[in-house]
Amino acid sequence: MLLDRQAIGDLALGAAFLGSGGGGDPYYATLLAEAELERRGPFEVIGVDALSDDALVVPCGWIGAPTVSVEKLPNGREAVDGLRRLEEIMGRSIDAVIPIEIGGSNGLAPLFAAARLGIPVLDCDGMGRAFPESQMAIFNIRGLSACPSILTDASGSLSVIESDDNFAHERLARALSVAVGGIAHLVEYPLTGRQAKDHAIHGTITVARAVGAAIREARAHGADPFAAMFEALRRTGLYREAGVLFDGKIIDIDRETRNGFSVGRIIFESFDGASRMEMDFQNENLIARRDGVVVATVPDILTVMDRETADSITTERLKYGQRAKVVGAAAPAILREAQALKFVGPRAFGFEEDYVPIEEIAAWLKP
Amino acid sequence: MLLDRQAIGDLALGAAFLGSGGGGDPYYATLLAEAELERRGPFEVIGVDALSDDALVVPCGWIGAPTVSVEKLPNGREAVDGLRRLEEIMGRSIDAVIPIEIGGSNGLAPLFAAARLGIPVLDCDGMGRAFPESQMAIFNIRGLSACPSILTDASGSLSVIESDDNFAHERLARALSVAVGGIAHLVEYPLTGRQAKDHAIHGTITVARAVGAAIREARAHGADPFAAMFEALRRTGLYREAGVLFDGKIIDIDRETRNGFSVGRIIFESFDGASRMEMDFQNENLIARRDGVVVATVPDILTVMDRETADSITTERLKYGQRAKVVGAAAPAILREAQALKFVGPRAFGFEEDYVPIEEIAAWLKP
Repeated sequence: MLLDRQAIGDLALGAAFLGSGGGGDPYYATLLAEAELERRGPFEVIGVDALSDDALVVPCGWIGAPTVSVEKLPNGREAVDGLRRLEEIMGRSIDAVIPIEIGGSNGLAPLFAAARLGIPVLDCDGMGRAFPESQMAIFNIRGLSACPSILTDASGSLSVIESDDNFAHERLARALSVAVGGIAHLVEYPLTGRQAKDHAIHGTITVARAVGAAIREARAHGADPFAAMFEALRRTGLYREAGVLFDGKIIDIDRETRNGFSVGRIIFESFDGASRMEMDFQNENLIARRDGVVVATVPDILTVMDRETADSITTERLKYGQRAKVVGAAAPAILREAQALKFVGPRAFGFEEDYVPIEEIAAWLKP
Repeated sequence: MLLDRQAIGDLALGAAFLGSGGGGDPYYATLLAEAELERRGPFEVIGVDALSDDALVVPCGWIGAPTVSVEKLPNGREAVDGLRRLEEIMGRSIDAVIPIEIGGSNGLAPLFAAARLGIPVLDCDGMGRAFPESQMAIFNIRGLSACPSILTDASGSLSVIESDDNFAHERLARALSVAVGGIAHLVEYPLTGRQAKDHAIHGTITVARAVGAAIREARAHGADPFAAMFEALRRTGLYREAGVLFDGKIIDIDRETRNGFSVGRIIFESFDGASRMEMDFQNENLIARRDGVVVATVPDILTVMDRETADSITTERLKYGQRAKVVGAAAPAILREAQALKFVGPRAFGFEEDYVPIEEIAAWLKP
């Protein structure tokens, strides 16, 4: 498929939702993509199965605290410099890039890099949403190595990381991202075409675009954008359950940039003052408690959305007094397997709760 | 020259003194060197001028907090892995290695790596002492690039860093050293033979060895090891002024590992209780105040030594109650030039004092 200006807008809306509060606000990535569109025409996105098994496929995206990305602008060469260096290291050309995570600005960022390299983006990603840490990618869950990876930043510095241990790789990349000012571009988990086919989460660009289109069309026709989005999600087959977990206003927000992440807690109160929801986040929203009872956890998606426009509000954009709906959605099934939950379940984030699928605990998700 | 077991011991004693409290206690490096000596015979050290101008010469050493190096042991392959990777990047063999700093264990560490690679160590170094940060090397002062550099650690991870800015390089390397547990091996400032001849501080392995031999011989003959060391230093022509700045016991020590460094302050009191000396350190001892008056600062050398044995006590080995002499020595002249003081003078460490040569403020240095 070719992505034109409207498709980019739809993708941005949908990716922001799938980001579960993280992945960075897609605003800048959208501007960059639109500018690139003017220069080079529509972006090419192809299905994973269109590639040969021995192709070189490279996931990439930004690593760091989204709070920083709002203020520290890229130099525009980070992704291309990293991808070009990987080509030197691998001694061959890259055939396609994929978003390491479909969520937030990282769902769009690879379009820009791919256009510069004259290669397509694959319709898939490495997380099916956004997660804060590199080893939360499906590729690590499936035992693949993140390395060699290449981290670049706006100052022009470049670091190549090699480690057999994807947790160590995350620590190294995170430390570098902090040292360069809190945000950097990371090229990681170089894959064969076969590995991309076997392990990437397929169709997520299509899904994000469909979610965005549903919201756009509902707005245009004066329909309920939430209902339209839920219907679009259910049709995907990937995110089968979705609904509103809470409706209210933000009455407290505690947020800081710590160890390279934006971390904190938000408290919502219902308009009648009778009920509260607390959410903890580490770049992404991780766990939601309604009046003290857990109603959703990672890896399920938890996104705060403007209650009128259904614009997703990333964690760095949350503000006191915002009137918002907290929307939950079931994560793709492969993130709910026992092997995956070791890396992306609530205990992987330090919570004491076991994972329970959102549709089992949040009964009100069902109409 | 060939370094045998006695020469290694002398070098360790002298390097510990030139470390100005830093560079790491040479104890482990000495054990490693002795073991390597058993396997392969004496280490080869050659003069810088023995190399051709187009040789590839590579400084290396350990980066991190010496407090950590005491507890976190190397895997023994760090230096060789880093040097081999640099050879791949440069597409040629390394002709010789040099200590990035002659001070502390880093004065010995390259012997081990060079023996493994079957190449000599050059009789020179990049700091003429030890300094805590990479950009304090003479090679940065002279405008050369630290990159590509390669950082390796005991877990087997390897990172290649490229940056045009040597301060940014220091931040990246430091961040990685912290992320891998506080200590790592760094191959940096790859040089041509010509650059090594023009910019390295020549003869420092010979000097360290001579200082160590003087202490050893004085001990053997019941002579004063301090007087012997001072005489040996003066004969070198590189460190012309040296003497005891204070004699007393440690009555307070404040030390923590922060941002990848061992930082703190020591307070000494004279045995009659009439006088005190305060020293601030960041891995290395940086500034000494006697009863509130500055008597020595970086880049001059400030080493705490056991008052009986003249063993140097590195900052991570300082203990309450130790009876010690604080010894000062003039830094090599090239570190006292205005261009050098921008990078290694007291203001480069955040102090408000300007540099004054130790022999001008510490009049008691003269006999």
